[in-house]
Amino acid sequence: MKTEIKKILEDVAAGALTVDEAVLKLKLEPFVDLGYAKADLHRAVRQGVPEVIYGAGKTPEQIIGIAGAMRSRGQERILITRIDADTAAQIAAAHPLRYYEQANLGLIGAMPEADGDGAVVVACGGTSDLPVAEEAALTAEALGNRVTRLYDVGVSGIHRLLAHMEEIMTARCIIAVAGMEGALPSVVGGLADVPVIAVPTSVGYGASLGGVAALLSMLNSCASGVSVVNIDNGFGAGYLAHIINHLGKKE
Amino acid sequence: MKTEIKKILEDVAAGALTVDEAVLKLKLEPFVDLGYAKADLHRAVRQGVPEVIYGAGKTPEQIIGIAGAMRSRGQERILITRIDADTAAQIAAAHPLRYYEQANLGLIGAMPEADGDGAVVVACGGTSDLPVAEEAALTAEALGNRVTRLYDVGVSGIHRLLAHMEEIMTARCIIAVAGMEGALPSVVGGLADVPVIAVPTSVGYGASLGGVAALLSMLNSCASGVSVVNIDNGFGAGYLAHIINHLGKKE
Amino acid sequence: MKTEIKKILEDVAAGALTVDEAVLKLKLEPFVDLGYAKADLHRAVRQGVPEVIYGAGKTPEQIIGIAGAMRSRGQERILITRIDADTAAQIAAAHPLRYYEQANLGLIGAMPEADGDGAVVVACGGTSDLPVAEEAALTAEALGNRVTRLYDVGVSGIHRLLAHMEEIMTARCIIAVAGMEGALPSVVGGLADVPVIAVPTSVGYGASLGGVAALLSMLNSCASGVSVVNIDNGFGAGYLAHIINHLGKKE
Amino acid sequence: MKTEIKKILEDVAAGALTVDEAVLKLKLEPFVDLGYAKADLHRAVRQGVPEVIYGAGKTPEQIIGIAGAMRSRGQERILITRIDADTAAQIAAAHPLRYYEQANLGLIGAMPEADGDGAVVVACGGTSDLPVAEEAALTAEALGNRVTRLYDVGVSGIHRLLAHMEEIMTARCIIAVAGMEGALPSVVGGLADVPVIAVPTSVGYGASLGGVAALLSMLNSCASGVSVVNIDNGFGAGYLAHIINHLGKKE
Amino acid sequence: MKTEIKKILEDVAAGALTVDEAVLKLKLEPFVDLGYAKADLHRAVRQGVPEVIYGAGKTPEQIIGIAGAMRSRGQERILITRIDADTAAQIAAAHPLRYYEQANLGLIGAMPEADGDGAVVVACGGTSDLPVAEEAALTAEALGNRVTRLYDVGVSGIHRLLAHMEEIMTARCIIAVAGMEGALPSVVGGLADVPVIAVPTSVGYGASLGGVAALLSMLNSCASGVSVVNIDNGFGAGYLAHIINHLGKKE
Amino acid sequence: MKTEIKKILEDVAAGALTVDEAVLKLKLEPFVDLGYAKADLHRAVRQGVPEVIYGAGKTPEQIIGIAGAMRSRGQERILITRIDADTAAQIAAAHPLRYYEQANLGLIGAMPEADGDGAVVVACGGTSDLPVAEEAALTAEALGNRVTRLYDVGVSGIHRLLAHMEEIMTARCIIAVAGMEGALPSVVGGLADVPVIAVPTSVGYGASLGGVAALLSMLNSCASGVSVVNIDNGFGAGYLAHIINHLGKKE
Amino acid sequence: MKTEIKKILEDVAAGALTVDEAVLKLKLEPFVDLGYAKADLHRAVRQGVPEVIYGAGKTPEQIIGIAGAMRSRGQERILITRIDADTAAQIAAAHPLRYYEQANLGLIGAMPEADGDGAVVVACGGTSDLPVAEEAALTAEALGNRVTRLYDVGVSGIHRLLAHMEEIMTARCIIAVAGMEGALPSVVGGLADVPVIAVPTSVGYGASLGGVAALLSMLNSCASGVSVVNIDNGFGAGYLAHIINHLGKKE
Amino acid sequence: MKTEIKKILEDVAAGALTVDEAVLKLKLEPFVDLGYAKADLHRAVRQGVPEVIYGAGKTPEQIIGIAGAMRSRGQERILITRIDADTAAQIAAAHPLRYYEQANLGLIGAMPEADGDGAVVVACGGTSDLPVAEEAALTAEALGNRVTRLYDVGVSGIHRLLAHMEEIMTARCIIAVAGMEGALPSVVGGLADVPVIAVPTSVGYGASLGGVAALLSMLNSCASGVSVVNIDNGFGAGYLAHIINHLGKKE
Repeated sequence: MKTEIKKILEDVAAGALTVDEAVLKLKLEPFVDLGYAKADLHRAVRQGVPEVIYGAGKTPEQIIGIAGAMRSRGQERILITRIDADTAAQIAAAHPLRYYEQANLGLIGAMPEADGDGAVVVACGGTSDLPVAEEAALTAEALGNRVTRLYDVGVSGIHRLLAHMEEIMTARCIIAVAGMEGALPSVVGGLADVPVIAVPTSVGYGASLGGVAALLSMLNSCASGVSVVNIDNGFGAGYLAHIINHLGKKE
Repeated sequence: MKTEIKKILEDVAAGALTVDEAVLKLKLEPFVDLGYAKADLHRAVRQGVPEVIYGAGKTPEQIIGIAGAMRSRGQERILITRIDADTAAQIAAAHPLRYYEQANLGLIGAMPEADGDGAVVVACGGTSDLPVAEEAALTAEALGNRVTRLYDVGVSGIHRLLAHMEEIMTARCIIAVAGMEGALPSVVGGLADVPVIAVPTSVGYGASLGGVAALLSMLNSCASGVSVVNIDNGFGAGYLAHIINHLGKKE
Repeated sequence: MKTEIKKILEDVAAGALTVDEAVLKLKLEPFVDLGYAKADLHRAVRQGVPEVIYGAGKTPEQIIGIAGAMRSRGQERILITRIDADTAAQIAAAHPLRYYEQANLGLIGAMPEADGDGAVVVACGGTSDLPVAEEAALTAEALGNRVTRLYDVGVSGIHRLLAHMEEIMTARCIIAVAGMEGALPSVVGGLADVPVIAVPTSVGYGASLGGVAALLSMLNSCASGVSVVNIDNGFGAGYLAHIINHLGKKE
Repeated sequence: MKTEIKKILEDVAAGALTVDEAVLKLKLEPFVDLGYAKADLHRAVRQGVPEVIYGAGKTPEQIIGIAGAMRSRGQERILITRIDADTAAQIAAAHPLRYYEQANLGLIGAMPEADGDGAVVVACGGTSDLPVAEEAALTAEALGNRVTRLYDVGVSGIHRLLAHMEEIMTARCIIAVAGMEGALPSVVGGLADVPVIAVPTSVGYGASLGGVAALLSMLNSCASGVSVVNIDNGFGAGYLAHIINHLGKKE
Repeated sequence: MKTEIKKILEDVAAGALTVDEAVLKLKLEPFVDLGYAKADLHRAVRQGVPEVIYGAGKTPEQIIGIAGAMRSRGQERILITRIDADTAAQIAAAHPLRYYEQANLGLIGAMPEADGDGAVVVACGGTSDLPVAEEAALTAEALGNRVTRLYDVGVSGIHRLLAHMEEIMTARCIIAVAGMEGALPSVVGGLADVPVIAVPTSVGYGASLGGVAALLSMLNSCASGVSVVNIDNGFGAGYLAHIINHLGKKE
Repeated sequence: MKTEIKKILEDVAAGALTVDEAVLKLKLEPFVDLGYAKADLHRAVRQGVPEVIYGAGKTPEQIIGIAGAMRSRGQERILITRIDADTAAQIAAAHPLRYYEQANLGLIGAMPEADGDGAVVVACGGTSDLPVAEEAALTAEALGNRVTRLYDVGVSGIHRLLAHMEEIMTARCIIAVAGMEGALPSVVGGLADVPVIAVPTSVGYGASLGGVAALLSMLNSCASGVSVVNIDNGFGAGYLAHIINHLGKKE
Repeated sequence: MKTEIKKILEDVAAGALTVDEAVLKLKLEPFVDLGYAKADLHRAVRQGVPEVIYGAGKTPEQIIGIAGAMRSRGQERILITRIDADTAAQIAAAHPLRYYEQANLGLIGAMPEADGDGAVVVACGGTSDLPVAEEAALTAEALGNRVTRLYDVGVSGIHRLLAHMEEIMTARCIIAVAGMEGALPSVVGGLADVPVIAVPTSVGYGASLGGVAALLSMLNSCASGVSVVNIDNGFGAGYLAHIINHLGKKE
Repeated sequence: MKTEIKKILEDVAAGALTVDEAVLKLKLEPFVDLGYAKADLHRAVRQGVPEVIYGAGKTPEQIIGIAGAMRSRGQERILITRIDADTAAQIAAAHPLRYYEQANLGLIGAMPEADGDGAVVVACGGTSDLPVAEEAALTAEALGNRVTRLYDVGVSGIHRLLAHMEEIMTARCIIAVAGMEGALPSVVGGLADVPVIAVPTSVGYGASLGGVAALLSMLNSCASGVSVVNIDNGFGAGYLAHIINHLGKKE
């Protein structure tokens, strides 16, 4: 990181750069130059990691434009979250988009090969949690992770969860998605010894308070190794699982 | 119940009671006479059912006085809830009280024989929930129920719960006590096919919000047959379990 | 339950099964085999008990498919909750569905004969609580319970409630449905000595906070024998009442 | 009220006051002069109405000083709310105070004769609500109202309330004090046709949320004629009842 | 009230009624007979007081039917709250309804002459609170009260409020309607010495939390004589003001 | 301000006004005359300051009427907030309105020259906060302030914020707009030594609770000089920034 | 600010500094050098401005130590907030501290001369808000501002506030402190045309929710120019008022 | 894991075990045998990993007893959380405990060598967050992780955080501890590309709501890779960081 500053200084020392030019240079791009930013170039190290467009609140035109700009500078794979079928259809007219309706998510470019340290398990209890679970699972896959889906393992039918002990025990990271009482992460966290990312969903009614009940439940988990993301934040869970599952590749 | 009204009317018809006397009689005791109240005499049907004194906010003197009045009219067994050891000691000087410190509860008179339809299971996950669980268990016992305690069956160690399937499957009613994430009733409710009374406790810190997290979790239970009482309300759960466990005795 | 394990072991002892085959068998179906799950077969004991489909968030096609699968394996009676009239019409084109519009609930197959221990009373105070009250009542009826409806007994006209003391005193279980201030279960609980299941509804405005006011009120009931289910959860109350009303049939 | 302005103007017209002196006079005391303030003198119309000192957060010395100032300008009766026994003892050393321990309230001077339009009923359900109920009752009495206390009329024993129909039907104003589920005002409001002032108390635990459950319940009362004051605000209820009970004396 | 019981008893004494017939009669209509209910007949004392239909959640057909039944038994004046213009139009085709669009309220029959003890002031600060203020004002008028409207007196322009001191000082009861910060009742309560009924409205956004901010503000009013009804409950405030304004007529 | 009272008094002294006429005059317009109100005329001091119409909840017709009245008495510049494109189009047919779609805000008359003490910086982190940020920025501009927009400076990319240190250090007042975690004002407040007005937005989902999370975060800011307005209240922030930025012009 | 970087570069250009030495220098002190931090030296421009120690949660020893360090490097005036009398006494043994008991605040060194642009008004309604009001007032004074205290101007006695119109109209900035209903800032904001800093206090009980009611009320103020700080944050308000009152001195 | 079942089956096949004995064996220890539990033996793989005792709510005697039992079966290193100095002193009399007062945490046995994949950074902004930060840091160290402490890096002084970019960029996992506005994790998450565990603390007052403000802020973090644990849960964060930092050692 420090090489660019060093180069500026060497140029100054060498007279190739005047002091004023150097001041300007340091002032204009102080952080990119100084390496304070999480450099986007960093990503280029691993081939094929997609950029992400958060679709909610953006018009199809805006998304098409952003995606176009990304592709024009060489980005082949772009993950677009929180878009409905109509928006996806409009994007698909401009870019080679594959749309995953259940997860409200689209991917420009092909799914990458999984290159993580192990498998990411995505678990949830019922069909209503599927959109969030799939957002998590597809995000992880699009970022290059092998994903195992356990989608019928709610705590009120504990035997179905226990029937998947092998997947749970061998995962590198587990995403536990649950609405209503939000108890799944606690049970999973008691069985596994890897990081468990709990995702509360807004599924429920009445005292579920839009997912707050599940959120509070998860924050109070008595199992070790559990942490929580925002309600319905499947993308955030998938992204964090990806980071954890690629730590072995770091440095 | 209607016999008393009938008697008044017969007396009127027979001239043994004037109309004005009858009006007065009906006016003065309309509800006892008409049977609208949950008649206390009803309880006399089953020998030995205790009366209950809710001790919180009462002075030892007040409790001693109330208990004395009860005993003087023949009540041998009196359950006193929410009293600390000091209060209990003062009461014990005046009445034959046995104090259960963990449950903050005392009983005047001996524990009755269990005469319910089956067993009441009281389950909880950890030592901090014990006071509430014991309040429930002792209440049920004092009212004449056989109680099975399962006190180390939290959801983050699910195997310990599963090791007690036999007790769970053969109970007449299950009280599931839990603080923090409050997931136990959902798991138990998924295993059992009897009524599950969920008792949230105020055990926890931070986002447990004094038991509200557990309460919300339980209200959102995805298991059938689960209902909820107030935070820390072990007595209420024990009493309700008693009613359910004695329905077979009714009529 | 244990017979299947026993049979595997006997086959092993008899040489009819190799050790490895037995391991596989135990591993593949450990929970059904071991009886940890609330076996669905269990239900077959009582003829005609329906299965339940929670309709909210499911497409008509999904519901039709699930119902078809259930019927093809012999299930004659299926209760479908939380469906609107349009969805019901589409299902009715595929299955012999009777739709109960007020309760947003449909039943495939005829209502069963009531075979419970006694009557279930469903009480509520006003017309706006009717959908939830009917969901509870029809659920209980579909599961084989005799239901008495008391639908104009709000606490601000206490005489109407008192005029039904006989139904209240002879019920096996009472479901008290109320929105706004949620006081009905407390008054009913003070009159009856059977389990009272309180159902808060989201009826109200402003400080009713979508039913939270009624919910809190019910959780704080000073009457004994009251427990609470989620806001608007008529089905849950009806189901729990059914379990309580069939305890006499157990074992 | 307008007489003082008029006098100033007349003095100006008569030359007894210069324009500048008049401006100053109007500027210095614009509101007292113009009568915008709820004039304290107004109170002198009715002999013996006390002034009120809100004791919470004041030292005994401060209260003694304020009471002294009031007495020195002729006020014989002073109501002091929210003081504990110690504070009361210190005040009693300086002023002729009678302390009402249950209500945490003291009165300097004798209780006045009741001179209101009718009776104020103060109703509550249990012993734990007594401090708030007594604060309301004594406040009303100290302001000159006849008070009828109904202190054992909780909604879970509805017959006790109904036994007092005569007091309820003949009151001029009813104060209904309740903690926990806060249902009393709804039931009372359904029986009476006079204003019902609902006072939630902080009595309860867990989901009573320090009185918020009772407060919400009361705000959602389905009975007409009910309004609500702050949690534990017995004084406010007593004062409002006093205003209502003296409207007949107005103008 | 007691005359009907007396008559039954006299008939029994006279042999005109058998004991069993009398029991049945007492049992069937115990509360109407015994006078426990707020007798609707009571209202007939004052000519022309309307009955009220709460329109929210009722179909136009239901409302037409209820109104028809009322009119057929002689009720000439019927107040219907919370109906939109479409519903009103349908009702108007069946009954002589006058619709007040701003208040979402209709009246069958003519407005009565005001016969209360004095004037009811309805005050609010801005145009967005008008629907609730008008619901209160029209309710009071329909019940026979003279209403003074002060509709531009918000606390952020305090001079406008002060310009109406005369109306405020001479009112019998004041309804103060306010959304957002809900400060109006406190200021009005500091100026007036009659009951102030505070009505929070759901007007506002963000931290107004649907009227909860105004509600809490009003409950904490430091002015004496203020009580609060539910958010947007203009009807309740108008009804309570009516009761207060007719106390002089009582007994 | 006091000149008008003085004139009335002088007229009285001169006999040009009778005492009664003077009383009436003082009574009828006490506050305008006495200067208690924030006189609208005050504004005329600075040429071109717009009046403001809060558009939410007003019909296009009402807004057109109000704007017409304002213009007819000489007001050339009128700011209309919270109107959608349709409403704006209707207004534009009647008045020379320029509509700013992103900010849901329109201006009749041209933007004024900036005449404040310095620049107002409006900062926000992402595209979803733009409507609120633009409401603030355009409000400030319409009131005569120079505005610097920093619209891509979220805290999760801190280098982008730091790249604008010069604008931040030289501002007269900074408006920091943020949804979700609401951290921007804290970071900005730590960098600047001018007033920072924090505006939480309702941008977000789940645990953002409609902007309450950002609001709480901002209220807890550990940086000095930060104060907060209501959620989404861009107008309020812009107006306050204007007041601060024109203090140098005062007196 | 940029002079230091320039100097480093010039030294590099002149060979007085090697490239590596320069890299190190830039790396070690990047932010002080680059001027990104709100430089403490900045403060030295105005003689006598105190540093501030937030006393809550610090031991007397820690405070004494920090103050000692500050004084040893020449700081003569140190403001210490949130300390009780005992802590103050211990500090006073080590440093020349003057303690202001009501505000829980101490000042080492003498109060400075006021050098702001105008006066800061601190207004509150009652004695219970005094600690917060004094914290604000003394903070402003210690930072060099002239403070006018209006301490008996609650909204339920509006005339007292109006009697101080002159102070309000001539202030440079107003701090409005209020607990309970928190209405003061709205009324003040409607009267003044300078920034109003609203400070909710935790004074109150029941539905005041520890100051949240006042906080919400203030956030919803319908008066322009009002912004809000945290509950009881008198220091923050005083500091912000100081910044606003010294803007004229800037640049 | 499957070896034990296999052995039972082989014994059955060999006749060494009868079928009934085998059934019993499978029934008695189904879960340990089947490996469903997170086997404690698992931990023995890594030498020196401590067991953990959650001290809150346990008496010194209980802790001494539990620790004694652990040590007697060979556990040398035991971490005891949430104990005060007194409790620690009593434990230290029975076991070789080192107490860390700031973190309210004790360790029996020596700190282990760090054997994780990299360094765990623990960051916080101020002295008041230190107890939670130290609980996290010491937990991680006791579990065998190298910990880098950054304890003065609050967001209102962003330069101090940026001065530690090297530590942040090279960490394996970052724990960001913050009270009040809870913004630190967002800023850190924007700088780092490793998992960030956010720990809200209960530090603050007023609108911090006991840490809920910080909690909500963190859940809404706009930075990727951030997840959250319960308020003040330093232990949970330290344990999760440990799991993440030892993933490279797995399998």
